[in-house]
Amino acid sequence: MVEAKILTNSSTSILPAKTKTTPKIFAKYRPDIMRASKKFLSNHDVAVYDMLRYSMGWKGLYAIKTSATKGKALRPTLCLLACAATGGSTKQALPLAVAIEFIHNFSLIHDDIQDRDETRHHRPTLWTLTGVPKAISAGNILRTTADSSLHNLTNAGIETEKVLEAISVLTKACLEMIEGQYLDVSYERIPNISIDDYLNMISKKTGALIKSSLHLGALIGTSNRSTINAFLSCGQSLGYLFQITDDILGIWGNQNETGKPVGSDLRRKKKSLPVVHVMTQASEKDKNILIKTYQKSHLSDEDISNIIEVMNRTKTKEFAQTLAKTHCDKALESLVGVKLTPETRNDLEELIGFLFHRNH
Amino acid sequence: MVEAKILTNSSTSILPAKTKTTPKIFAKYRPDIMRASKKFLSNHDVAVYDMLRYSMGWKGLYAIKTSATKGKALRPTLCLLACAATGGSTKQALPLAVAIEFIHNFSLIHDDIQDRDETRHHRPTLWTLTGVPKAISAGNILRTTADSSLHNLTNAGIETEKVLEAISVLTKACLEMIEGQYLDVSYERIPNISIDDYLNMISKKTGALIKSSLHLGALIGTSNRSTINAFLSCGQSLGYLFQITDDILGIWGNQNETGKPVGSDLRRKKKSLPVVHVMTQASEKDKNILIKTYQKSHLSDEDISNIIEVMNRTKTKEFAQTLAKTHCDKALESLVGVKLTPETRNDLEELIGFLFHRNH
Repeated sequence: MVEAKILTNSSTSILPAKTKTTPKIFAKYRPDIMRASKKFLSNHDVAVYDMLRYSMGWKGLYAIKTSATKGKALRPTLCLLACAATGGSTKQALPLAVAIEFIHNFSLIHDDIQDRDETRHHRPTLWTLTGVPKAISAGNILRTTADSSLHNLTNAGIETEKVLEAISVLTKACLEMIEGQYLDVSYERIPNISIDDYLNMISKKTGALIKSSLHLGALIGTSNRSTINAFLSCGQSLGYLFQITDDILGIWGNQNETGKPVGSDLRRKKKSLPVVHVMTQASEKDKNILIKTYQKSHLSDEDISNIIEVMNRTKTKEFAQTLAKTHCDKALESLVGVKLTPETRNDLEELIGFLFHRNH
Repeated sequence: MVEAKILTNSSTSILPAKTKTTPKIFAKYRPDIMRASKKFLSNHDVAVYDMLRYSMGWKGLYAIKTSATKGKALRPTLCLLACAATGGSTKQALPLAVAIEFIHNFSLIHDDIQDRDETRHHRPTLWTLTGVPKAISAGNILRTTADSSLHNLTNAGIETEKVLEAISVLTKACLEMIEGQYLDVSYERIPNISIDDYLNMISKKTGALIKSSLHLGALIGTSNRSTINAFLSCGQSLGYLFQITDDILGIWGNQNETGKPVGSDLRRKKKSLPVVHVMTQASEKDKNILIKTYQKSHLSDEDISNIIEVMNRTKTKEFAQTLAKTHCDKALESLVGVKLTPETRNDLEELIGFLFHRNH
């Protein structure tokens, strides 16, 4: 069972003061990531590659003329940052960064089909434009293109043993991610899941790829196993941190900042951490209110307010924030004993702090 | 454009006389393939692995108590046979054979969703039992488990450079296969495709994995590049041969032998070679009959007879058989200059002959 005491602003926190704004590290690596990814999907004339360029946010499709707003490319950024921090050349880690971003986007394409989600990044999801059969193939192609990218590691001068290790780590992460996606789908029909079930699910669905991003970056950057393990451990905590913060924003996020309506995760009846928590903590009377509300096919603004009222009584937001803070601190602590240049330590701490404080 | 003269029983054929019965090579390798595959899916308690064991035909699921009738496991058999024929130990090629079978079954799981097919091997398809979202994840897990299997190549004593080459070949085959699957889906809405379009599609959808099965087996068995290329080339022809024969059986196959009703591909309105051929060869009057018939939502026995009548006039069956024979001969010719033991040559020729003459 999870034990997390409710913290206020901890005076022992080692978080940098300003971490709400998007760290500059995202802008630093984005051009390289974009250039390398685009190159990979450019030399193909089968129409499915147009679908992929749409889902990557690079261009429109059919009647949708616009590209998407620029994403942060969190996972490949983590990979390149870990590589740089451990003394490696980010150029050598680029094939991995590209593969990670492709695997992430493959999971989004299939996830949108599985959840019947119709919008992502303010645009229609791929399956709504092309139908499910073509979108399934598009996701599969992106998944396999990720594998193709890994073969560039050899060209980038990485020794074959390390290439094989990197492929093995990423395969394992991908498998865990899909298992997590399966668990997420199967939990939909189960009225109550425990917080442990929830944490196991997100450690796979979201955590596996985030963890492997730092792990793989460090693997390319150094051969020091304790350093690699420190990044792996940091990545594990970041996976939890990222998803728990996402779940908080999914209910209490500001619409102007997240681009999603207030309580959007509640309207979608997503089994996020706050929902799992309130169901285990609410009084019998409140539980009945929740169950009745969730049985409705469409939740009104009043329903959303009622659920949030109950969450106030169970101190659900505080619970989630505390758990996020615990994983944020763990992530920072993982790197305490690791030798890093002041610049990369600052970049890493800023990024971790942002993942805790972010409002979008 | 394809040119294939109509052959009767060619006197120059190098086919063995008796090739209708299932060659004994299938029975020889099946136990090893089964044992190795089962091991790979056994140590997992997530329920999705039960779905995979069902889709592999090993056990029942929910109300479906029975396992499936034993498949031939053609692709892994080709892989092991190519390895043995080129002087390798089939034990070393086993991780590849398993990966190939998993990739094949992954493609079937997603294909059934894409085509809304409800029956395979006389049992309900996976998605009809679990719903589409879970079946998508199940397919994805099988796809990634294939990658996991490849890491056993190193344990089997294959040098790292060759492991990387094998991974690269299989990745490329997988990508081609999915592109072919995409083309197949997108051709559904197009009334007429050319025979060249059709051949390009099947060379990817069916051909890529069959080609790589022989290619990869030979890669493990030998380092002689011209031998490896001969098997690659043989595999390419076998891909065409397999699918064209499948298309012939899909219309003219004997129900008692194929387990499918007469004209089943016509009822499903599949764009198979006979359909593509008849649409390019029929008279204007016949074409109109075909178009009108195909516009019906359900085809009656009389409709099927009418279509087959038109196909008789365009000599469609003969065209398809001739094309199959051309690829059968090409496959055999690819191996003419290759040094093989009499036993493995006999096994290979028997298998190729079976793929031409098979009635199920």
